[in-house]
Amino acid sequence: MFADTASFHRWFDRRRRAHAYRVTRVPLDRLDGWSPADGSGDLRHRSGGFFSVRGLDVTCSGRAVDAWQQPIIAQPEHGILGILVKEFDGVPHCLLQAKMEPGNVNLVQLSPTVQATRSNYTRVHGGRPVPYLDHFIAPRRGQILSDALQSEQAAWFLAKRNRNMIVRTDEDVPVLEDFCWLTFDRIAELLHHDDLVNMDTRTVLSGATWLRRPVAAAAGEDSFDAALARSWQPGAPARHTTAELLSWFTEAKAGCTLQRRLVPLAGIEGWSLRDGMISHDRGRHFTVIGVRVEAPNREVSGWSQPLFAPRSQGVVAFLARRVRGVLHLLVQARVETGALDRVEMAPTVQCQPADYAATTLGGLGAAARPPFLDVVEAAAPGSIRFDTVQSEEGGRFHHARSRYLLVEADDGFPDEVPPGYAWMTMRQLMTFVQHGNHLNVEARSLLTLLGFLPEDHAAARRRPVAARV
Amino acid sequence: MFADTASFHRWFDRRRRAHAYRVTRVPLDRLDGWSPADGSGDLRHRSGGFFSVRGLDVTCSGRAVDAWQQPIIAQPEHGILGILVKEFDGVPHCLLQAKMEPGNVNLVQLSPTVQATRSNYTRVHGGRPVPYLDHFIAPRRGQILSDALQSEQAAWFLAKRNRNMIVRTDEDVPVLEDFCWLTFDRIAELLHHDDLVNMDTRTVLSGATWLRRPVAAAAGEDSFDAALARSWQPGAPARHTTAELLSWFTEAKAGCTLQRRLVPLAGIEGWSLRDGMISHDRGRHFTVIGVRVEAPNREVSGWSQPLFAPRSQGVVAFLARRVRGVLHLLVQARVETGALDRVEMAPTVQCQPADYAATTLGGLGAAARPPFLDVVEAAAPGSIRFDTVQSEEGGRFHHARSRYLLVEADDGFPDEVPPGYAWMTMRQLMTFVQHGNHLNVEARSLLTLLGFLPEDHAAARRRPVAARV
Repeated sequence: MFADTASFHRWFDRRRRAHAYRVTRVPLDRLDGWSPADGSGDLRHRSGGFFSVRGLDVTCSGRAVDAWQQPIIAQPEHGILGILVKEFDGVPHCLLQAKMEPGNVNLVQLSPTVQATRSNYTRVHGGRPVPYLDHFIAPRRGQILSDALQSEQAAWFLAKRNRNMIVRTDEDVPVLEDFCWLTFDRIAELLHHDDLVNMDTRTVLSGATWLRRPVAAAAGEDSFDAALARSWQPGAPARHTTAELLSWFTEAKAGCTLQRRLVPLAGIEGWSLRDGMISHDRGRHFTVIGVRVEAPNREVSGWSQPLFAPRSQGVVAFLARRVRGVLHLLVQARVETGALDRVEMAPTVQCQPADYAATTLGGLGAAARPPFLDVVEAAAPGSIRFDTVQSEEGGRFHHARSRYLLVEADDGFPDEVPPGYAWMTMRQLMTFVQHGNHLNVEARSLLTLLGFLPEDHAAARRRPVAARV
Repeated sequence: MFADTASFHRWFDRRRRAHAYRVTRVPLDRLDGWSPADGSGDLRHRSGGFFSVRGLDVTCSGRAVDAWQQPIIAQPEHGILGILVKEFDGVPHCLLQAKMEPGNVNLVQLSPTVQATRSNYTRVHGGRPVPYLDHFIAPRRGQILSDALQSEQAAWFLAKRNRNMIVRTDEDVPVLEDFCWLTFDRIAELLHHDDLVNMDTRTVLSGATWLRRPVAAAAGEDSFDAALARSWQPGAPARHTTAELLSWFTEAKAGCTLQRRLVPLAGIEGWSLRDGMISHDRGRHFTVIGVRVEAPNREVSGWSQPLFAPRSQGVVAFLARRVRGVLHLLVQARVETGALDRVEMAPTVQCQPADYAATTLGGLGAAARPPFLDVVEAAAPGSIRFDTVQSEEGGRFHHARSRYLLVEADDGFPDEVPPGYAWMTMRQLMTFVQHGNHLNVEARSLLTLLGFLPEDHAAARRRPVAARV
């Protein structure tokens, strides 16, 4: 436990320096333990575990680009992302760990108590047991606070889901050397640092927003904070009923025409294996690279694996507006290429803006730019209520970073929005999260970032968006 | 509108006799418009629409029988099952139709306002337009009361879902000759007739249980009816919190090992094409048959199609008990062969008991009998609170009938149940139904049957179960 945030950072820096991690690039065709399977070119581990990289053929997407092929990560098994919670002097604390993932821009970030694929915890790789796992595997002794199967980046994963769990315990819990107890308030502060709280922690915490300190809004008070506080209240007056929102979501699923099928990675159109990497021929999206990892304190001390490396930084943003004093977020029913049920609730804007540069440079062109990206990029500094750069999962993605923003729309913004969009309160989103399979991972991350806004968030950096993306 | 139930039955008999329906058996290999595809033996319609019959290979099911192969209906497109609701003199009425389906034991049953596959309403078959469809297709003018994608019989369908909709209108609605307006009270009565309210109507109505007349239970009153009424109340004290139930459901999904893949129908193990039918070699489960249909008033007046014909009647039963005066149902997290997400909430017992006859006769044997089937079959007449025989969807199944029961467990029944089972209130089930993808179609049917129990349900037939199944 830390007396202040500075002492956390001192501890975290020590943990970061305590291990001699090394990540080096290796050509995909010389990746130890991974070999292209039987002429298909698919990348598989010799154990049959972990994940594989395969080809995906997409048609009838209904997006600006209707059909394409791409590499995709197939990882059908569910892992566990679990956070252990315990009260000390009546204050709940989360057990988080300083964990190295090879794709992290800074290698070490704050992870959940347990972050383990099934291959990890059944020890396909023959490594060390996963600490604290018994708190999350039945029969459990603790109290379940939240437990749902949730999707992950559907642009890069096919039907990948992890079990997101929060378990409260009263037992004595030994604290291993890379682990620490943090209050929700402390985590709220840390969420405002770039690249510190990892994606897995953020998605699990989206199931815990109801545990955060309740903030009361004085009646009639006209600030952003008051509108946000009201938006979390049970029974907050909402623009749409839950029945209407569920119908809007069903409509999007029923109208979705997306077709997808796995194809051999070797032959996919628009991508080439060159210099030991698989890259998009026009320089868009991402590149599949290979790395060799040395990590003395992980379950196994060295391994090799492929990683997906985005070509540019992402933008993940909710537009917000106040409806009768209650903050509402503009949610998108998004066709998610790899999602099990094909459509999920997503932030207003979620893309890599660089992909939409002028066509002559290999970009998709301005005509394909997603709706509302212009509004986000043109946002005045005063309307940006939240703004940090966060990392996506470093176990599969290399330096995958996105700018996460909450932008308050000005009064001129239309109340009526296109059919694939709907205004929702924080409370409504919080309820959908509990059921799993509703919000995508980017929306859950943003919900956590907003759900744990610290007291002094108004001092958050306010920079013109276009300058940073 | 009908002054009493007798006048409804007179109208319904007239409608039943008004059309010269004819269903005749045709060998599968001589079924007009359907031909085994390219050596696979799969049955497909020449239009490419409707559905196909393919082979499914199942392994690691975790059931008493771990692996098998079977024919399965593949119908990836979502249809619409919609009920239009309108108030007359302040009383809501549902627009239902007397509709012929070739597999119905009595040909004509009460269907939703709209019951249309995508092939129907996009008119792949070139037939007549589907009446009232515009109330259910965007842009709609009415008010959505319920709208979710829901699964159908997962033992016979692969990933089949239909959009279940209830839409309220204030407009003038012309009543076509096979249609009628019925109050929820009248429907409640009709649900207690065998084989009258079809499966599609029952599943749609499961989204409307909150519209039924609220019945108040006097505090301390100790009757079954009072316990049932309390079970519907918001905030009814429940054995488990919603978070616990969602965790239990997630646990079952995370533990599910089911693997399935489509294989050519021609080669599936344990089944043979003989005499123009595909039958199980040991006489279990179902048979795939072909029929020719003449129906002058349907979208097309004649067609041919395969149907799945169960070999025996099913039993679909909830065990119930009172917990602190509130009725709780014992729900099963069931591995559902064909369900999109592989596990759904199901009734306590759901099977064809004849399949578990002595092994020497081709049955699976008593050792494979599902848990609690004995309890249901041994139930004393006085503990059977509900008991009718209902038909499954007559558009795909031939004479598929199940006995639907609610059995109140006696005081000796253990409070602790196996891990795959949990006690839930009606209110909790009602909430899960709204989100779709939680309750299977048999559970939704039972929920409707219980949600619309008429005043005089205590007079419902009470016969020993074993005598009828």
